[in-house]
Amino acid sequence: MGKLVLAVSMSLDGFIAGPNHSVENGMGEGGDRLHDWMFQSEGTALPNRSASEIDGRQSFKSDTINADVMQDYFDSTGAFLMGRRWFDHGEGPWGKNPPFNVPVFVVTHRKREKLVKGKTSFTFVTDGLQAAVREAKAAAGEKNITTGGSDIPRQLLQAGLLDEMLLSIVPVLLGRGIPLFDKAMRKHIELEKISVIDAPGVTHIRYKVLK
Amino acid sequence: MGKLVLAVSMSLDGFIAGPNHSVENGMGEGGDRLHDWMFQSEGTALPNRSASEIDGRQSFKSDTINADVMQDYFDSTGAFLMGRRWFDHGEGPWGKNPPFNVPVFVVTHRKREKLVKGKTSFTFVTDGLQAAVREAKAAAGEKNITTGGSDIPRQLLQAGLLDEMLLSIVPVLLGRGIPLFDKAMRKHIELEKISVIDAPGVTHIRYKVLK
Repeated sequence: MGKLVLAVSMSLDGFIAGPNHSVENGMGEGGDRLHDWMFQSEGTALPNRSASEIDGRQSFKSDTINADVMQDYFDSTGAFLMGRRWFDHGEGPWGKNPPFNVPVFVVTHRKREKLVKGKTSFTFVTDGLQAAVREAKAAAGEKNITTGGSDIPRQLLQAGLLDEMLLSIVPVLLGRGIPLFDKAMRKHIELEKISVIDAPGVTHIRYKVLK
Repeated sequence: MGKLVLAVSMSLDGFIAGPNHSVENGMGEGGDRLHDWMFQSEGTALPNRSASEIDGRQSFKSDTINADVMQDYFDSTGAFLMGRRWFDHGEGPWGKNPPFNVPVFVVTHRKREKLVKGKTSFTFVTDGLQAAVREAKAAAGEKNITTGGSDIPRQLLQAGLLDEMLLSIVPVLLGRGIPLFDKAMRKHIELEKISVIDAPGVTHIRYKVLK
């Protein structure tokens, strides 16, 4: 049985996106900084690449360590679980070949027909998070369900459904934006550190959520 | 010239102490969890030790990696810079032999005579943070000035005075408490990752503050 894993890039001060995000600017002001490690090679001065420039997986240019992390992110995932915000600001930029190549389940209140683009399918689940998790688990088989964002992971944590977190901690203080962990959670949750990868421009730490 | 370094333990969700802290319970409810790595040996089931049980340095029991981190914390420091809260809740528990063994400068509004305990001196600086930094630099010589807490480091960051941060990231979500970074900062600050130590029960990441 696969695990339900949150994989997300976070600034050292806890933000997963900058302020004033919109469909056009899904990472918010300054938030693209959090994805630099995916696109920049160590020591090179590539211009910052925005997540909105992704077309399939071809655009991921990275050093070896971070490329391996990205490869494992996709290889280990049998289905993605996505909030509406992630989907909405991705749908345009992903183009005809979204990088997922597995079934994606979008938790939303808006009914919509299943969408197939390249090797990726998007299923819009309107009967709640738990239903979306069930569908994603069935689709993922032995592989993991991977999620991102902040609303969905917080709900999963609250419900005791999240198994692991892979946090890519980026050496920057954004000062403001969308926090991953919200004070509204007010819950003590013990974690177990599974692995640490000291990569160029980012630290990837994998945690098990203890229940 | 030594550097001005923040060294502090932080929960993954950004807290350096739990809620409802007081002079009697300086780490707040559940906050002692953040210092477990200093006191517990890997794989042993020592009862949790509270910072309030520290008597000199003899009580630091730890695995080799974390013991080395603690040793380096003290060895590299020529003077400590401390907020009033840190001092107030430490004064009693530290007893006659505080673990610092170098000059400590306490930023406070309350005048008080210089205090000497064992090899540690406490100087109470009432004319502001910048004055305290100057005094501490003079005392530290070639070694670092080390600070902790959250108010003082935030003021140092805002003023562009902080050189490095050594964050000991503890695998726990406290859910509430005293945050290290406050939304009130609202400032984008770039960091450079200097080193990562994957230690039992904690990840020590050292950052340079870019100016």
